[in-house]
Amino acid sequence: MAAAFHEFELIEWIQTRCPAPPHDLRSIGDDTAIVQPQAGRELLLATDMLMEGTHFTFPPATPELAGRKALAVNLSDIAAMAGEPHSALVSLALPRSRGAEFAKSVMQGLIDLAREFHVEVIGGDTNTWDGPLVINVAVMGMAPSLQSITRSNARDGDWIFVTGALGGSLASHHLTFTPRIREATLLRQMVSLHAMIDISDGLASDLQHITTESGVGAVIRSEQLPINACLSTELTEAERLQKALSDGEDFELLFTVSPEEGQKLLEQNPLSIPLTHLGEINSGQGAFLEQTDGSRVSLERSGWQHQL
Amino acid sequence: MAAAFHEFELIEWIQTRCPAPPHDLRSIGDDTAIVQPQAGRELLLATDMLMEGTHFTFPPATPELAGRKALAVNLSDIAAMAGEPHSALVSLALPRSRGAEFAKSVMQGLIDLAREFHVEVIGGDTNTWDGPLVINVAVMGMAPSLQSITRSNARDGDWIFVTGALGGSLASHHLTFTPRIREATLLRQMVSLHAMIDISDGLASDLQHITTESGVGAVIRSEQLPINACLSTELTEAERLQKALSDGEDFELLFTVSPEEGQKLLEQNPLSIPLTHLGEINSGQGAFLEQTDGSRVSLERSGWQHQL
Repeated sequence: MAAAFHEFELIEWIQTRCPAPPHDLRSIGDDTAIVQPQAGRELLLATDMLMEGTHFTFPPATPELAGRKALAVNLSDIAAMAGEPHSALVSLALPRSRGAEFAKSVMQGLIDLAREFHVEVIGGDTNTWDGPLVINVAVMGMAPSLQSITRSNARDGDWIFVTGALGGSLASHHLTFTPRIREATLLRQMVSLHAMIDISDGLASDLQHITTESGVGAVIRSEQLPINACLSTELTEAERLQKALSDGEDFELLFTVSPEEGQKLLEQNPLSIPLTHLGEINSGQGAFLEQTDGSRVSLERSGWQHQL
Repeated sequence: MAAAFHEFELIEWIQTRCPAPPHDLRSIGDDTAIVQPQAGRELLLATDMLMEGTHFTFPPATPELAGRKALAVNLSDIAAMAGEPHSALVSLALPRSRGAEFAKSVMQGLIDLAREFHVEVIGGDTNTWDGPLVINVAVMGMAPSLQSITRSNARDGDWIFVTGALGGSLASHHLTFTPRIREATLLRQMVSLHAMIDISDGLASDLQHITTESGVGAVIRSEQLPINACLSTELTEAERLQKALSDGEDFELLFTVSPEEGQKLLEQNPLSIPLTHLGEINSGQGAFLEQTDGSRVSLERSGWQHQL
């Protein structure tokens, strides 16, 4: 039987492991956290819920990796806006049978990633039940006013870029990916980002979020897709392409810039990860894939979508 | 078989029902919401997760009441800081078998309460699984700088007050209670609130949050407890007292003020609900109940606490 303990003890344990917040911020242990906004900075707010059996399973996940992923997917949303993460609220539905050490391990994985990205865990809610683990994180970020990068500002002629490699997340990196916070900041400092999104549903689906929200069309070229080298060599080329287009949870950044800025990025990639020019935004409608023979196929929303 | 539909369709349905946010606020449909902070205002942030089978069951709850409660408990946290609610992020784990109409009903109950309190639903996360309903809300509020009322500022000699009536929430009002947002604002405008908390764990437990955080003691008098008239008449007086002390989820406000301000509140209650003077803060340690014979018993943390 796993060791039982009480909610208040878990909260105290979490408090001891979360670095004291700066003076302007009241944290865990009151009805709400208090944050003093900074002049000239916008607030970015996002939330994601992860459920055992859907977003992770034990194994291959460990409790630490489940906690880590719950924060990482939220940081990826802040990265997609080119923001700087600030603080997080963490809610847990803990399986009663797994006891106290399990709960601490989940929080430890989350807190370790929070430290790496200077995020304060400023509040939350702990519960137990007989169901599986559910973790919800709500994250707050900040960005200089009017410098958040939305999905809706892609322009005719823009070049489309993606960071890193695509496909095969579930088999390789969905528990361990690095949210592209630093990369988004470096990109914003070097070029004028027009539209940006993180790839959570899959490239095909997320590109269509940009085209729909921006009222534009897009063409990307199959031969330029940075297909993840970790994909099984037993797959056919068509299967690998399909995975790079539609596997979810790559959490890479998909963005558009002017051709001039795009040229600059190709000549001098400021990141320590690959940066790939996939195609262009046009004034049409819909997103298309140009195949090696020059033919174009519509990119249906083939990304991961929850069937209710 | 309940009608199935897709995540994006549910999100679009939610968008059509959430009033367009003011110009300074970017809402559902991007990676994060964007909020422009207001000068001289602090941000209050809280989160609560509700799980089917733990915080509500169907019946007596309806999907609408479950959604309503998920927001209401968060608004109660904002009330406890005497803040004004601003916006909410909503995460759902939806039981696949219950289909689309169920999901919409949950959101409708939540959105109706949001409108009543002028809260914008600015983002969220929808998921389905084979488990029970889980709803997480993260709420943001605002308060004039340095006017948020924490738990840690109760002072020797303060009078202790509570709004409304206590006990029996599970049988009567845990699904339908009104978060004390308006009451907290009226109180803050009339008197200098020293410490405040909402009663979620139970009076005995929540009073001890105030005494512990403030480094003070407290005595409340049993004969002054505003015991809920809805409690079953089959209960003994001792059982009714115990329920008023330790039933959770009353979501009334427990607060302290100076004796002079307390006198003012007794003479001129600004609220349309009862306001009761329960006892006093002292310079000692621990919280005690003074019984009708004058003897004092320690109020152990007898409120509701999750056993992990």
